[in-house]
Amino acid sequence: MTEIKNRRVVLASRPQGAPGAENFRIEDVALPALNDGEILLQTLFLSLDPYMRGRMDDGPSYAAPVAVDDVMEGGTVAKVVESRNKDFAAGDVVLSYSGWQTYAISNGAGLRKLNPALAPVSTALGVLGMPGFTAWAGLQNIGQPKADETVVVAAAAGPVGSAVGQIAKLRGARAVGIAGGAAKCAYLVNDLKFDVAIDHRAPDFAEQLKAACPKGIDVYFENVGGAVLEAVAPLLNDFARVPVCGLISQYNGASARQPLTMRSILVQRLRVQGFIVSDFAAQYMDFLGEMSGWLKAGQVKYREDIAEGIDAAPEAFMGMLQGRNFGKQLVRVSAG
Amino acid sequence: MTEIKNRRVVLASRPQGAPGAENFRIEDVALPALNDGEILLQTLFLSLDPYMRGRMDDGPSYAAPVAVDDVMEGGTVAKVVESRNKDFAAGDVVLSYSGWQTYAISNGAGLRKLNPALAPVSTALGVLGMPGFTAWAGLQNIGQPKADETVVVAAAAGPVGSAVGQIAKLRGARAVGIAGGAAKCAYLVNDLKFDVAIDHRAPDFAEQLKAACPKGIDVYFENVGGAVLEAVAPLLNDFARVPVCGLISQYNGASARQPLTMRSILVQRLRVQGFIVSDFAAQYMDFLGEMSGWLKAGQVKYREDIAEGIDAAPEAFMGMLQGRNFGKQLVRVSAG
Repeated sequence: MTEIKNRRVVLASRPQGAPGAENFRIEDVALPALNDGEILLQTLFLSLDPYMRGRMDDGPSYAAPVAVDDVMEGGTVAKVVESRNKDFAAGDVVLSYSGWQTYAISNGAGLRKLNPALAPVSTALGVLGMPGFTAWAGLQNIGQPKADETVVVAAAAGPVGSAVGQIAKLRGARAVGIAGGAAKCAYLVNDLKFDVAIDHRAPDFAEQLKAACPKGIDVYFENVGGAVLEAVAPLLNDFARVPVCGLISQYNGASARQPLTMRSILVQRLRVQGFIVSDFAAQYMDFLGEMSGWLKAGQVKYREDIAEGIDAAPEAFMGMLQGRNFGKQLVRVSAG
Repeated sequence: MTEIKNRRVVLASRPQGAPGAENFRIEDVALPALNDGEILLQTLFLSLDPYMRGRMDDGPSYAAPVAVDDVMEGGTVAKVVESRNKDFAAGDVVLSYSGWQTYAISNGAGLRKLNPALAPVSTALGVLGMPGFTAWAGLQNIGQPKADETVVVAAAAGPVGSAVGQIAKLRGARAVGIAGGAAKCAYLVNDLKFDVAIDHRAPDFAEQLKAACPKGIDVYFENVGGAVLEAVAPLLNDFARVPVCGLISQYNGASARQPLTMRSILVQRLRVQGFIVSDFAAQYMDFLGEMSGWLKAGQVKYREDIAEGIDAAPEAFMGMLQGRNFGKQLVRVSAG
């Protein structure tokens, strides 16, 4: 075959605060020939997720940072274009972790074949993938919403938050979503059937949240921190559960107040628990079964925000950290 | 019968910071005659517990405050001296919640008869009562120590802490106890078989704690807060559990830093959960069965620190808040 050029986005430098274009560099490099056992993957979709901001920093976290000059990491859906591995054939579509690049070489480890007939393959990066599983696992293991309880989630038009609210409704709870702007709020109520949606940019946001939760808050699914947590904290009921899967408001270095004190945890018997979705990997098939069923029955809806071409990834990522996306942020890297 | 005078300790005023003698008042009052269905209780033992400091304040908590001029609340073991209730006979010994007084009149609600042949009746206020159950329930439901994990508890010579460490050992974990002074530390290691005991007054306390936990901390049973929590926080392992049942270092109004941030909870996937023992009331018989067995077999030991006479209660209580007691703090109100 003719030589294939791989276009990739590498970490050019570590950001101070919000990442800028100068922290990324786009490169074209030649791909080596395949060895026995290897396959060549062409990226169809790249997933952009808030956790990637953490990988750009050098501090301790639950995963190693991306090294400067290395390819940015990320989940992908890819097509096998050449295979020297007996388990994969050209044309297979797989869920992979190829990062921000147009091609990747893999030995097959960690890949999962997708069936394009079951659902659009991009859903493996969203509602049927890591974001959907994060919502499901956090509610299943920590949030545990009961009928008529009130569940609050921020970034509610995003892929995790929209799944949290819809699953909460399916469990019989009330869902209150927080999002940025009137369009997202209308989508939450009209399309996803949240009970209430609140614009966090409203000057009376905290009062609106209080009015939306007349019986207090039983589950606060924490993915943003900051001002939302400050408004939530005084509304938490005794025995409230706070699954903590993200703090996007802090990722760019904003100062962090601590509205949940040890005293409030004690007196109100709160359960505050951090998790990342891989902690519950053993439950993935349970999730997939339940969520696929809901999707097929139209009980769960999803929305994607698709940037075109690998060159658009840095800008789309920076926008997502500021909430400019509307739906699961993807990059269509190749039409396949 | 001749008229009986009841001597009682009432809340004279609300303390600012540490309670002083001026916050209590001792009164002698006449007891009314019994109505049908009532019983007269003579207090044998009064339990003094840290939670009582919270009841002296007016702020919101998980229980209503004691009103000024009302009898201080508290758990008691009492003898029935007169009964007009068919369920109780003179001579019965019961667990009651009669408060800081020598006599009380009850309609029988909430009383539990004790069998003096099974265990000394004072244990119903300690190792077989609320403190022991607090230790057992916090570990059972939140701490969940596994074999070879490291469990750390402060106030370890007290009734909750000593039970936490001994139960942790019986579950196969390592127990590291923190206490004030050499005598208590020697007791923890020599009598209760903790693996390590550390004096929190040592200038190099934090370094000693680190050395005592070479594999980090998996369960921190939180009952003190403050400097101990600050030393514990950097040693917590990923997936550590922090049952929060008390913050005695803050009860007198000390400033509260928050060494456990939302970020540390997220990144380390900590579970931080407040509880009070009544949340798990349904498990009380399970506790009683297991703990009675351990006590009978000599696998759990306990120690009592007994003040003599109701007049000694305020001083004993103030001393307990400063850690001057050595063992479960009781007041022998009457020899019975």
